[in-house]
Amino acid sequence: MAEQHLLTITSRGRGSVEITDEIAALVGYAANKNAAAGPTVNAGIAHIFVRHTSCGLAITENADASVRRDLETLMQRWAPDGDPAYRHNQEGEDDMAAHARSLLTGVALTIPFADGKLLLGAWQGIYLFEHRTQGHRREIVVTLLG
Amino acid sequence: MAEQHLLTITSRGRGSVEITDEIAALVGYAANKNAAAGPTVNAGIAHIFVRHTSCGLAITENADASVRRDLETLMQRWAPDGDPAYRHNQEGEDDMAAHARSLLTGVALTIPFADGKLLLGAWQGIYLFEHRTQGHRREIVVTLLG
Amino acid sequence: MAEQHLLTITSRGRGSVEITDEIAALVGYAANKNAAAGPTVNAGIAHIFVRHTSCGLAITENADASVRRDLETLMQRWAPDGDPAYRHNQEGEDDMAAHARSLLTGVALTIPFADGKLLLGAWQGIYLFEHRTQGHRREIVVTLLG
Repeated sequence: MAEQHLLTITSRGRGSVEITDEIAALVGYAANKNAAAGPTVNAGIAHIFVRHTSCGLAITENADASVRRDLETLMQRWAPDGDPAYRHNQEGEDDMAAHARSLLTGVALTIPFADGKLLLGAWQGIYLFEHRTQGHRREIVVTLLG
Repeated sequence: MAEQHLLTITSRGRGSVEITDEIAALVGYAANKNAAAGPTVNAGIAHIFVRHTSCGLAITENADASVRRDLETLMQRWAPDGDPAYRHNQEGEDDMAAHARSLLTGVALTIPFADGKLLLGAWQGIYLFEHRTQGHRREIVVTLLG
Repeated sequence: MAEQHLLTITSRGRGSVEITDEIAALVGYAANKNAAAGPTVNAGIAHIFVRHTSCGLAITENADASVRRDLETLMQRWAPDGDPAYRHNQEGEDDMAAHARSLLTGVALTIPFADGKLLLGAWQGIYLFEHRTQGHRREIVVTLLG
């Protein structure tokens, strides 16, 4: 099986948007559909891919929002906005910083599932990290493989 | 084919634990079992996922242990323990640092295999990096797709 | 379906080599071959894995080469060559830095495809990042899963 969906998420500027429920719903839907049609997909992986270079995807702690605030603090150190060394700055001080942050977390995630449920740990959430200061419409391709 | 296994690894506190042999054994076992049952799985990927947010998985050099010690040195710079800027520190000075280190390497790996063998390079090992100072029991889901 | 190919790329020393066209060609070839043989592979993921620990793979902006130059600037800060704290330095000042850079981006990428085409965004390119100062022959395993 390989099943593919397109999600569109609109960010409100720099920060994280949780998408765990959206991915879990696609995995649950696929399991139910296949159960009716014939052989059930018992196990596999969900692949999540964002089609941009100035945002990223990451799995991190889902209980205390200050974790994601502290990650922002660190990302600002790792790739400061408006660093004088940058040559790529056409779109503003956050332009190159956003590409660098995107490199560090990457633009793809893979998560195992079984019996229609993601096998995330209790404290794991799936997040889109918007790295631009302005909000953007972000396209995410979800592929379920089993 | 999609085949799934749960591994449990007990870490002894901050540092790396090699799990290459455990993953290789699952890939070898799957190849033999399928050879007996019918169509052999000739090629695919092994997906390794740790169900926690304060440890991580990484592939790195397997010959000289000082590589992993030097990586610890760098991770301490990238996400210092007890940084005064952190707001998330309920579980101690290593709490937020562990989440940040986990973000940098990620919690999932994918490795190709063929004919029952991982296609790692000669110097590549698979490691669980424990980022907390105390040891923990860590659950790893391994999914073989082919 | 799982289909596997070996690519060999020769780098000219530190810097990035775009491999988007090579991966796209393998995906296109697989779709055509399967269309002739029987059931078409409509959707899946391309898995790209480099079998080394001193180079890496990353998806980043493909239009302005200064993005990749700025990423080099940042990587030099994240993992400086010849840092006095390193214990692993047998192969020179770039040795440990290369392993650390490899850890940050990772050695594997996964990209969705459908109907014989990679589902990359308009500004996304696939790059091999050579982290050693000398050029090297790098082996890349490409696995198509659908």
